Amino acid sequence: MKKTFTLITVLTLLTLSIIAQPFDPEKRLNELGIELMTPTKPMANYVKAVRTGNLIFLSGHGPSKADGSLITGKVGRDLTTEQGAAAARQTAISLLSTLKGELGDLSKVRRVVKVLGMVNCTETYTDQPKVMNGFSDLMVQVFGDKGKHARSAVGMYALPSNMAIEIEMIVEVE
Amino acid sequence: MKKTFTLITVLTLLTLSIIAQPFDPEKRLNELGIELMTPTKPMANYVKAVRTGNLIFLSGHGPSKADGSLITGKVGRDLTTEQGAAAARQTAISLLSTLKGELGDLSKVRRVVKVLGMVNCTETYTDQPKVMNGFSDLMVQVFGDKGKHARSAVGMYALPSNMAIEIEMIVEVE
Amino acid sequence: MKKTFTLITVLTLLTLSIIAQPFDPEKRLNELGIELMTPTKPMANYVKAVRTGNLIFLSGHGPSKADGSLITGKVGRDLTTEQGAAAARQTAISLLSTLKGELGDLSKVRRVVKVLGMVNCTETYTDQPKVMNGFSDLMVQVFGDKGKHARSAVGMYALPSNMAIEIEMIVEVE
Repeated sequence: MKKTFTLITVLTLLTLSIIAQPFDPEKRLNELGIELMTPTKPMANYVKAVRTGNLIFLSGHGPSKADGSLITGKVGRDLTTEQGAAAARQTAISLLSTLKGELGDLSKVRRVVKVLGMVNCTETYTDQPKVMNGFSDLMVQVFGDKGKHARSAVGMYALPSNMAIEIEMIVEVE
Repeated sequence: MKKTFTLITVLTLLTLSIIAQPFDPEKRLNELGIELMTPTKPMANYVKAVRTGNLIFLSGHGPSKADGSLITGKVGRDLTTEQGAAAARQTAISLLSTLKGELGDLSKVRRVVKVLGMVNCTETYTDQPKVMNGFSDLMVQVFGDKGKHARSAVGMYALPSNMAIEIEMIVEVE
Repeated sequence: MKKTFTLITVLTLLTLSIIAQPFDPEKRLNELGIELMTPTKPMANYVKAVRTGNLIFLSGHGPSKADGSLITGKVGRDLTTEQGAAAARQTAISLLSTLKGELGDLSKVRRVVKVLGMVNCTETYTDQPKVMNGFSDLMVQVFGDKGKHARSAVGMYALPSNMAIEIEMIVEVE
């Protein structure tokens, strides 16, 4: 009887400690095999992120790859929905790279607040939300519930360098 | 003489009490015959609204009707400006439904701050502001001066499910 | 020896005082020969700017000229990139005019935080960032480093009155 009680206590404490453990975004990125990039500086009179109070507003980012090239083309013609979602995921990595550059440590993120996802697509393409899930899923994988954001997903006529997607983001930080 | 003075005093107090009476948005909705909907949960890793400090950022909403269907089509081809404005008004109801779900009581709204209205339209359509007035007029009917917001109204190439309009909103709350 | 020392001291202090001198945006506008316009009131239920806390959210503005007319047309067909950049600069002047109307004095600006630049363009046009530099360059000329903002630059299908560009802006103020 006493043994069973002790076992239950131990198991409960163990479970609680796992639940209470803060989500470590840097560790999660490692587990996902994602390596952040060194953010480049814009060659113009703007910056990639501005902090005001506890909010960081990030510039529109594109699906930059580690070699500096962009995923380009229109979803619904040049790219499938799945390829669009992969571009959205790549854009998330680009945004996280900038955010890490600003914060030093991604565990300072309190909440991904708001995201505007602008998908380069054809006029008859209507699955912009599925494309943006490539972004949203990664955010929740990395930040847990803190990664759940308000979101708009829309279809664009034209984007810089014909990139497949442009995403801007507002984050609340410590 | 004394009677006239008393009458003026009473009338003045009455007028002041009407002016001073806070705009009751829930009562206004009732008077307008508008019933808010039960907000649905997104089937993906995002949410319909995120609060940070005194601001609530709402996701892009579409013109959802009570039966769950959307008003679809392009303004300037499938829909007239008036029908577009009706879709914008319906989107306002959808946003207010989400906001009420977040706040419990819409009288906690201190100010509708900023709105981005994205109208699904043809390339030559140029009356996006008239379409967005369907949204803005309802906000002022419901919240009075607190409903007056900063706004952008633009024309989109493509929107999810071919909905007629997508609107996102930032609100300051108590 | 003592003379040289004194000279160096004086020069150092002079240099420091120039560096330390706060950027005076009103003076800079004068030097640039830019006269702000008297902001007009929207003829609908929205306003050109809303303040919440230390942030001012400005409505989407277009390239209004002093005579009230707008620069119209699509970049890539009706307008060159240079003409588009001039329209973006004109929109910056329009936004600053509204901001001055709100603040009384532009030296109360602590930071231009975030900008969304929506360029009316053709489907194959990809130089939206070059167009937006017309806006960003003026902001930095007027505000110095405080004028450096987070930014998104995208290509639109249609804009109100066929204007060449629409820009919305978030500013942190004293």
